Amino acid sequence: MNKRASGSKRQKNNSQTSVSLAETIPSAVKNLLASCDSDVCFDHVDAAPIPYHEAVVQIIQQARRILFPGYFTQTRLDRVSLEYYLGQQMTQLFDSLSKQIVLSMQHGCLRFDQPCQQCTERGNKTALQFIQSLPPLRAVLAKDIRAALDGDPAAKSFEDIIFSYPGLLAITVYRMAHVLYELEVPLLPRIMTEYAHGLAGIDIHPGARIGESFFIDHGTGVVVGETTEIGDRVRIYQGVTLGALSLPRDAVDQYRNKKRHPTIEDDVIIYSNATILGEKAIIGARSIIGGNVWITDSVPPDTKVLMNVPGLVYIGNGTRSTASKDPLS
Amino acid sequence: MNKRASGSKRQKNNSQTSVSLAETIPSAVKNLLASCDSDVCFDHVDAAPIPYHEAVVQIIQQARRILFPGYFTQTRLDRVSLEYYLGQQMTQLFDSLSKQIVLSMQHGCLRFDQPCQQCTERGNKTALQFIQSLPPLRAVLAKDIRAALDGDPAAKSFEDIIFSYPGLLAITVYRMAHVLYELEVPLLPRIMTEYAHGLAGIDIHPGARIGESFFIDHGTGVVVGETTEIGDRVRIYQGVTLGALSLPRDAVDQYRNKKRHPTIEDDVIIYSNATILGEKAIIGARSIIGGNVWITDSVPPDTKVLMNVPGLVYIGNGTRSTASKDPLS
Amino acid sequence: MNKRASGSKRQKNNSQTSVSLAETIPSAVKNLLASCDSDVCFDHVDAAPIPYHEAVVQIIQQARRILFPGYFTQTRLDRVSLEYYLGQQMTQLFDSLSKQIVLSMQHGCLRFDQPCQQCTERGNKTALQFIQSLPPLRAVLAKDIRAALDGDPAAKSFEDIIFSYPGLLAITVYRMAHVLYELEVPLLPRIMTEYAHGLAGIDIHPGARIGESFFIDHGTGVVVGETTEIGDRVRIYQGVTLGALSLPRDAVDQYRNKKRHPTIEDDVIIYSNATILGEKAIIGARSIIGGNVWITDSVPPDTKVLMNVPGLVYIGNGTRSTASKDPLS
Repeated sequence: MNKRASGSKRQKNNSQTSVSLAETIPSAVKNLLASCDSDVCFDHVDAAPIPYHEAVVQIIQQARRILFPGYFTQTRLDRVSLEYYLGQQMTQLFDSLSKQIVLSMQHGCLRFDQPCQQCTERGNKTALQFIQSLPPLRAVLAKDIRAALDGDPAAKSFEDIIFSYPGLLAITVYRMAHVLYELEVPLLPRIMTEYAHGLAGIDIHPGARIGESFFIDHGTGVVVGETTEIGDRVRIYQGVTLGALSLPRDAVDQYRNKKRHPTIEDDVIIYSNATILGEKAIIGARSIIGGNVWITDSVPPDTKVLMNVPGLVYIGNGTRSTASKDPLS
Repeated sequence: MNKRASGSKRQKNNSQTSVSLAETIPSAVKNLLASCDSDVCFDHVDAAPIPYHEAVVQIIQQARRILFPGYFTQTRLDRVSLEYYLGQQMTQLFDSLSKQIVLSMQHGCLRFDQPCQQCTERGNKTALQFIQSLPPLRAVLAKDIRAALDGDPAAKSFEDIIFSYPGLLAITVYRMAHVLYELEVPLLPRIMTEYAHGLAGIDIHPGARIGESFFIDHGTGVVVGETTEIGDRVRIYQGVTLGALSLPRDAVDQYRNKKRHPTIEDDVIIYSNATILGEKAIIGARSIIGGNVWITDSVPPDTKVLMNVPGLVYIGNGTRSTASKDPLS
Repeated sequence: MNKRASGSKRQKNNSQTSVSLAETIPSAVKNLLASCDSDVCFDHVDAAPIPYHEAVVQIIQQARRILFPGYFTQTRLDRVSLEYYLGQQMTQLFDSLSKQIVLSMQHGCLRFDQPCQQCTERGNKTALQFIQSLPPLRAVLAKDIRAALDGDPAAKSFEDIIFSYPGLLAITVYRMAHVLYELEVPLLPRIMTEYAHGLAGIDIHPGARIGESFFIDHGTGVVVGETTEIGDRVRIYQGVTLGALSLPRDAVDQYRNKKRHPTIEDDVIIYSNATILGEKAIIGARSIIGGNVWITDSVPPDTKVLMNVPGLVYIGNGTRSTASKDPLS
């Protein structure tokens, strides 16, 4: 009896819902479409195809299998089969990468109302140039891995770094994306670095220029802006920002494509959560930037910049510590 | 011979392991079950079904396909088919969303030992209200996208922002979750914003109230607490915390559902890693908060708050820089 | 006509590309292989198998289903079937975990050119020890969940915490990885904690020692280093670093396996983005560390350490706030 009552109640609800559903969805669709007639919406309809996020993720994973053979696969490799394995992987990579590059270029042409007859040719050529960049990229990444082992006492082995270090993941993806950025591929480089950003919390713009033996430890919250320049053997920690000064709302357009970010010279170490902003901030070689500081000016070579200890207040049981000593020494 | 020896050794090991396995697992199961008889454990047995994480992720992705038609699909859309596409997507979204809302509501009722005869009806109605909110949501998100292009010289196109900006992803998911939060759906809104937190490193509580044209750049480490209020055209950077002051352990309960977080008025800019805590912190319109500062009080309108440059010590080659100038000018 | 012209053009491009492709890929493979003959590259060829990332992710998810029965599955559980469910899950967990442990141990032996006849036996035994640790682990995690509800006014229910709190995810994975770290399993523990780091932005080294009722709120950017010790009922917020002082390049090796990280005593609270570095930093019981401070020395028990308010400059409309009061009170 109860069951029937509740059953009939449910039926009533269902039919009520059905009526509302039959009215609500067409009306919501109509409103969504209407909002497209004004200029307040974004859609991608009747346009050239655009790159597809999942395909870009596959490209990154395949390139990693080529750059670190044997690490990111369950396929057991040996010296004899390695050549065939790499040849097959590279052919697949070329196919999928050239497709996404062509889509990105077609989309870029469309945006500026340009004809796009050569997109396919240019896209394929660019994909080949990327393939050619893989051997030198591999050598550069090997130096990054050594820098991680040299810089972190918690690193137990190269395998630890290759498997687990988010810094290496972010640098690997950045170095791939930078090759495509330099080859003037639109959209794709940023999709790639944002994939790494999502995984590692490390946001390196594909336009940044970064030297050899670069090590990012922990890394969550690191930001490296588009026009940043970083020398060799630089080491940075989690939360470090190499960013731009925020611009007045009416000045943003005139700063596009201009130098807006810091320059970090060789052998600099930047501790966690330090913020270095603007193109005037040139951090001289071998300097050490302490944690949590905020810098918008240049620092000469061989300098330590630290937060002043009297900047802290001790309340309660503690006594104010003196600031006469260098806490890093 | 060696092979047989090692084979027999392995067999011995296997049988040893088997014996241990035969003992260990039942004993571990028993201990796990025993721990459930006391109050020191959490399980979800004999209870109403609960929302399922993977289903929530699908809901978010489907809603994104509706809010940004054509961007997150390989299906090529045109003006003629768009209406049918949106209608079909919305119907699917209603089905999966209403199911998860009903599960969340049933679970909430059970928690307070309340009968739940109307959960299905209320859940379906709530899902319809969510569907109705999509067209206005789309217009609000369009303003967020424009704010990103206006605020970031590194943004090359609207597509760049829609595809790649973690800030837009976090804001999109927050705005959807906030609709469900206002409709008093339990569990689900927080699962949604934590999904975005995991991807983007940006933690916006679904209860926060955020105005139009909101832009978060980079974003990793951003925290926006439950009772935060944010005006229009506010711009914040990575690592910014709009949080609560930590409470004494015995005071936590009396602060639930009370205002505990800052208020940020229109046109404020907050630089990276600034921390603003507590409901007394009201940041006046058009103010600029510098990076890495820590604020628990109000700031009047049209004010710049910066870390004092003499707060830094330069050791070595550097000379102490003077603090007489405004580093943002 | 146009179509044919463009068709023939495309054919030309294709054949050009084909030629380049036929040359480029073998040459790139050759260069990649050549780079392996020098010592500038990393590969994993002709070596013992290594643990597989996807398998480790499955292990973590299965262990979570055992530790929180009924929460992370669509299977509806009841008291009668629970025992069989747990037994089946544990057997599967043993199978997959022992396999990955054995692979990790074999890889470790190979690295030091040691024979590895006992890897399988040791691996299986270690997997059993892990299974045995699950019931006590479950009780410890229950205390972590209670600490979250006690510490966060925004927590609506235990379910909210179990489903959505990234801090609980990171602590759960850390506590599992720490068991394997103590059992001297190579590679695997760090792969596990880095999986959580990727999802939650919280980087807890498996070697850290952490007491009961640990609560991390929000959590993005948190770093807890390898030799950190944390007492009971400690509460930390997003962006907190418990790290090591950076070492001179030639001193890194002598610090491996030595205490390099802080000690945090019972009942300490550490606000967002505070940085505490080095083994000399012992934070006394019941102390409160304010946000954004940078500490390399000890703090006595019952002390508050705050950033000095005069460390800020107010420019424009604002008046300099006085520093005479304790902003936390």
